[in-house]
Amino acid sequence: MNPTSPAATAPARAVTVHRTRTMKAIVKATAGPGAEICDVPVPAPGAGELLLKVLRAGVCGTDLHIYTWDRWSQGRIKPPVVLGHEFVGTIVDLGPGVTEFRTGERVSCESHIVCGHCIACRTGNGHVCENTKILGVDVNGGFAEYVVVPATNAWRAPSNVPIEVQGIMEPLGNAVHTAFAGDLSACRVAVTGCGPIGLFAVGVARAAGAAQVIASDVAPYRLELARTMKADAVIDVSKESFVDRVQQLTEGRGLDGVLEMSGSPQAVRDGLVSLRNGGRLSMLGLPKEPFELDWNRLLIFKGITLHGIIGRRMYQTWYQMDNLLRSGRLDVRPAITHVMPMERFDEAISLLRSGQAGKVVLVPWGESA
Amino acid sequence: MNPTSPAATAPARAVTVHRTRTMKAIVKATAGPGAEICDVPVPAPGAGELLLKVLRAGVCGTDLHIYTWDRWSQGRIKPPVVLGHEFVGTIVDLGPGVTEFRTGERVSCESHIVCGHCIACRTGNGHVCENTKILGVDVNGGFAEYVVVPATNAWRAPSNVPIEVQGIMEPLGNAVHTAFAGDLSACRVAVTGCGPIGLFAVGVARAAGAAQVIASDVAPYRLELARTMKADAVIDVSKESFVDRVQQLTEGRGLDGVLEMSGSPQAVRDGLVSLRNGGRLSMLGLPKEPFELDWNRLLIFKGITLHGIIGRRMYQTWYQMDNLLRSGRLDVRPAITHVMPMERFDEAISLLRSGQAGKVVLVPWGESA
Amino acid sequence: MNPTSPAATAPARAVTVHRTRTMKAIVKATAGPGAEICDVPVPAPGAGELLLKVLRAGVCGTDLHIYTWDRWSQGRIKPPVVLGHEFVGTIVDLGPGVTEFRTGERVSCESHIVCGHCIACRTGNGHVCENTKILGVDVNGGFAEYVVVPATNAWRAPSNVPIEVQGIMEPLGNAVHTAFAGDLSACRVAVTGCGPIGLFAVGVARAAGAAQVIASDVAPYRLELARTMKADAVIDVSKESFVDRVQQLTEGRGLDGVLEMSGSPQAVRDGLVSLRNGGRLSMLGLPKEPFELDWNRLLIFKGITLHGIIGRRMYQTWYQMDNLLRSGRLDVRPAITHVMPMERFDEAISLLRSGQAGKVVLVPWGESA
Amino acid sequence: MNPTSPAATAPARAVTVHRTRTMKAIVKATAGPGAEICDVPVPAPGAGELLLKVLRAGVCGTDLHIYTWDRWSQGRIKPPVVLGHEFVGTIVDLGPGVTEFRTGERVSCESHIVCGHCIACRTGNGHVCENTKILGVDVNGGFAEYVVVPATNAWRAPSNVPIEVQGIMEPLGNAVHTAFAGDLSACRVAVTGCGPIGLFAVGVARAAGAAQVIASDVAPYRLELARTMKADAVIDVSKESFVDRVQQLTEGRGLDGVLEMSGSPQAVRDGLVSLRNGGRLSMLGLPKEPFELDWNRLLIFKGITLHGIIGRRMYQTWYQMDNLLRSGRLDVRPAITHVMPMERFDEAISLLRSGQAGKVVLVPWGESA
Repeated sequence: MNPTSPAATAPARAVTVHRTRTMKAIVKATAGPGAEICDVPVPAPGAGELLLKVLRAGVCGTDLHIYTWDRWSQGRIKPPVVLGHEFVGTIVDLGPGVTEFRTGERVSCESHIVCGHCIACRTGNGHVCENTKILGVDVNGGFAEYVVVPATNAWRAPSNVPIEVQGIMEPLGNAVHTAFAGDLSACRVAVTGCGPIGLFAVGVARAAGAAQVIASDVAPYRLELARTMKADAVIDVSKESFVDRVQQLTEGRGLDGVLEMSGSPQAVRDGLVSLRNGGRLSMLGLPKEPFELDWNRLLIFKGITLHGIIGRRMYQTWYQMDNLLRSGRLDVRPAITHVMPMERFDEAISLLRSGQAGKVVLVPWGESA
Repeated sequence: MNPTSPAATAPARAVTVHRTRTMKAIVKATAGPGAEICDVPVPAPGAGELLLKVLRAGVCGTDLHIYTWDRWSQGRIKPPVVLGHEFVGTIVDLGPGVTEFRTGERVSCESHIVCGHCIACRTGNGHVCENTKILGVDVNGGFAEYVVVPATNAWRAPSNVPIEVQGIMEPLGNAVHTAFAGDLSACRVAVTGCGPIGLFAVGVARAAGAAQVIASDVAPYRLELARTMKADAVIDVSKESFVDRVQQLTEGRGLDGVLEMSGSPQAVRDGLVSLRNGGRLSMLGLPKEPFELDWNRLLIFKGITLHGIIGRRMYQTWYQMDNLLRSGRLDVRPAITHVMPMERFDEAISLLRSGQAGKVVLVPWGESA
Repeated sequence: MNPTSPAATAPARAVTVHRTRTMKAIVKATAGPGAEICDVPVPAPGAGELLLKVLRAGVCGTDLHIYTWDRWSQGRIKPPVVLGHEFVGTIVDLGPGVTEFRTGERVSCESHIVCGHCIACRTGNGHVCENTKILGVDVNGGFAEYVVVPATNAWRAPSNVPIEVQGIMEPLGNAVHTAFAGDLSACRVAVTGCGPIGLFAVGVARAAGAAQVIASDVAPYRLELARTMKADAVIDVSKESFVDRVQQLTEGRGLDGVLEMSGSPQAVRDGLVSLRNGGRLSMLGLPKEPFELDWNRLLIFKGITLHGIIGRRMYQTWYQMDNLLRSGRLDVRPAITHVMPMERFDEAISLLRSGQAGKVVLVPWGESA
Repeated sequence: MNPTSPAATAPARAVTVHRTRTMKAIVKATAGPGAEICDVPVPAPGAGELLLKVLRAGVCGTDLHIYTWDRWSQGRIKPPVVLGHEFVGTIVDLGPGVTEFRTGERVSCESHIVCGHCIACRTGNGHVCENTKILGVDVNGGFAEYVVVPATNAWRAPSNVPIEVQGIMEPLGNAVHTAFAGDLSACRVAVTGCGPIGLFAVGVARAAGAAQVIASDVAPYRLELARTMKADAVIDVSKESFVDRVQQLTEGRGLDGVLEMSGSPQAVRDGLVSLRNGGRLSMLGLPKEPFELDWNRLLIFKGITLHGIIGRRMYQTWYQMDNLLRSGRLDVRPAITHVMPMERFDEAISLLRSGQAGKVVLVPWGESA
């Protein structure tokens, strides 16, 4: 991103140290529920790769799926694999051919490792590369002392934001991608679903100039977090009608956009109802199963645009996120509710299950929070 | 559109003639199946309106719905109403305040009468105006000797195309709108559903520079028409797998876009499967009822954009259509399979029911085909 | 914009009052410098028009040009004409056919009266209508007790902003149009030139989510106002190098966009130099005369997009502006430095000449500030 | 682009052959006019690179500049360097780490070698990478028997087009990039300047669905070529007024777009005059020196968008071009007027100087035309 510096030779001592010892990591070791803390070899960076000392790592709903070993995990995960796809680290070694980074730099990481030569990659849609491999899912990830990533996946972390925020730029990027998938500035938008990415989306929408940001969820705990992220209004859809409240809050104008983060069929339908004609709904939340839609009434007669969103635009989303963070416009700290040692991963998983958490950030062995 | 001419005073004789007699019209006279040919008064243009002598009028699937008096019709139509929302006519009288037209000009007509002051209208989305009234549906239409339309709905018909084509610019505009809702030039697209608008869409996609145009339907008759509209390939989905054939026809690349004209759940799903990641599906066809989708697999993981399409952009779509027709790039004559006297409306309806017709055009009383 | 109300019959008394007396107005009475306060008849609204009681009106650089009777004015203005193209008023009478407004409503006005049927109007570019007439320039404007405007030019003023702000939505719309001509959210932008529209642009860019807003001018007075409008940094280009300072302020990254409000050739060139490759420069400021550009170095090799901006998108810009004001995100009061009686128009002109003013707002006869 | 095949081991014989001999190449050997045919070592592909046996190579105006050693060349070229930045070749060897290609595949090449980590590269603007190196300009190019290119710069050549066309996809991509920089389908456009890229642009605009394509130049020879590329009309601006003729040809509507390929100040001005309000002018032609513009009249009052264009979008432009060629929609053979042995490079340069040539394609030593 920044003017490149000459690639410093990795200090010999550093190399020696990490090559000669093992490290602790959270590993999906077998095809079944749970995850183990294991000693595994410190990996070595190949051509075009970086070795990072992990500083912070975020826990994601996907990690929960993998932990519980749900259907999706059973089809996708090939144990053993080190988990963790959200993290920031310090570069401690450079693989052959890396010139744009040097050791000592701190980088956040895009989790999608893409092929660069499929149609998607070649047409500016790398985020839906047909050959995507995901760190912490398909290849070893960042719930460990060290992780190897392609240099192209590394983004110099804005130095003015707390290390916890640097650690969760990957899911924050999901929110930025969704928010920027359509008009946002001067728009009235709703964020449906206030899990961590929804909470981030509230903050992003505010920072990026939305005129009104309404957040909805079923959990008072999350709605309270949405308020701290500067939602103009929150709707508890377990108690109130989303459609009615939006109607009221927008003085009958309806929404220009919906950022769908819940995967709930009802949220999608209510969002579509509440959009003004010509509006957009961008879906990041993954529905648990197929559901039906009254296409005529909700989509076609209203002239709606619906976006399927996954990952982050590579790397326009990172550029936008970097600008928002570096400028101080966006502050997502209120959405990070827990920071705990990586050692206590099982507890982090329990927290996620409880619903009494925003984003949970882990501190690896040897790092102090 | 063109440099305006001074508003000629409507010749007194013309006014006299049409004011003093009645005219024949196809009227939905009562709340039940069928339609009648009636004598009704020739309407008079109000402020900002035009009186047209109808030259040609197209029959639409919507007319079939109204004729059969289906559930939608029962909720929407308030008899008596003169049917017909696709037509071209000659201006024979100008209401007060009309300055941009003069009598004698031939105009095709936008069927959506919009309010101009709702949010949709004010933000360039007049096609989804919240207060839309449709000619031939909500107000008297063009299956008649004369019709009154707002001057703003009139578009000077390109003089180089046959009068039948001038008569069906409204549904042709649906096809243009759908085609131009996303990238088209240099793209591989499929048109799913080869009714009249689908057939038009094949022609539009070819004229507008699509690199490959694949048409699908279940009816050999329609697929043959699609060929005459210059589809590069056709797929009979009653006999072949859409997905497999597209895979083969695109050499594994997939489609950049789908123009959905059938309303068939299977067509939507197959279209989504066949899109390359990052592609778009634009839905104009109206599904008969709600249907479900595997959102994750078909939309979100692929980063698809889905458009709900209705009407025509007012009036960008007309401008694009005008350019395509005026230049001779687009020739939709092969899709117009029948031209018959308006008197034989019942027969036209039967033709539509049979599926053995493309676009059917009617010639009003007193006009010769 | 809002749900329409039934058109109330204008109270007979009100009509009587304004029809039977004359009003005071600032009139360009003869082809020469200056302007006169005259008694002229209160105008009557024609079909589709509104009669407004003027509440506040802004003075614009264009008014200064007309006052001094410069070359442009000599070619354009046909005296006598009532000046004033920025204003807010209360509807006191409705012409025939107006249904979407009622008397008593307060509306701000678009100054461009457009034809609605040229190619520009028909393709969503009404702001560059080929037949534009401008209120206060080509037809009588709002420096008067009453003014007649087409109903379509009226926009319900957001009730939560001060009346002075309601009075200058026209020039504020110029700023919104320029700001939204390209990417803005999460972008680093410069506003070059801090006259009233430049000052507004600073506020708009902040409210709309720009990550960094840098303002430049040659006048310390204006730069100070830019600070009050929340510019992140200001550059006095009479003392500092724009290019060097931007380089420093953006940490070498350059600008994503430039909103050019000065018409200065140097500002355009410096702006282009300071853009990152692929950025955009949107020109609203009118250069005094043609000037040259090193096209290769400044535009082509950098892949820059350059926009010519005039007027306001009709009416997307008004919608965006309305959202920004109504939500409270945008506060432009600091840019309004003077509010004075319309009677003191000559003094307002002197203020503009002095450069010691932001936006100057006039209060008509009979209104109290 | 296509499904990747396992990287075949380069046959031992091939490797042996090219490593053990030198090759012929056209080299800018010294800092002065001219170029020499030299024997130089066959290069070896590094990590991520390909060695190509050159099959065809196009001669560009840039080569003429370098040959004549103009001011630009003196500042940019560091002799010795092998010239040639437009070419197609067969892969004969793969550097370490290349997995998406195998030997024997035929690839056309992007000439811009970009860094991948500057802001431009990271935001989808690799074509204006701040660290661009150009093949045949900054590093050894394709006027030789063999050339080394980064694998990422290689594009599988469409097999259905003649080898000469495969050889000039780089400049054809300039035309595609310019054409697709704004609306094109259903638009009336002019291509100003009918050198090879202008001629290509005429063909691209036709294939991509422009409704009217008008070509202008000062040379009857080139205008005749423009006709063979299917221009709807041509204007000899040495004899006719561009503005008047366009006015006539578009029946007073004006142009929607101008693809500026001449670098002529007059062409830019006339193009802007002839655009409808709201149109776009995309500049690829490089003006010889700075020139002035009447910004108000030509750009701002008309609401024009002006694009600086260079290179090709990486790799959306290649994808679009591939689709157009592979489908057979685009045939640029008429613009290739000469195919000659690379040995006769001096003669090719003379042809370019004479203006009596479209695109000139060279056949390397050992290949038969």
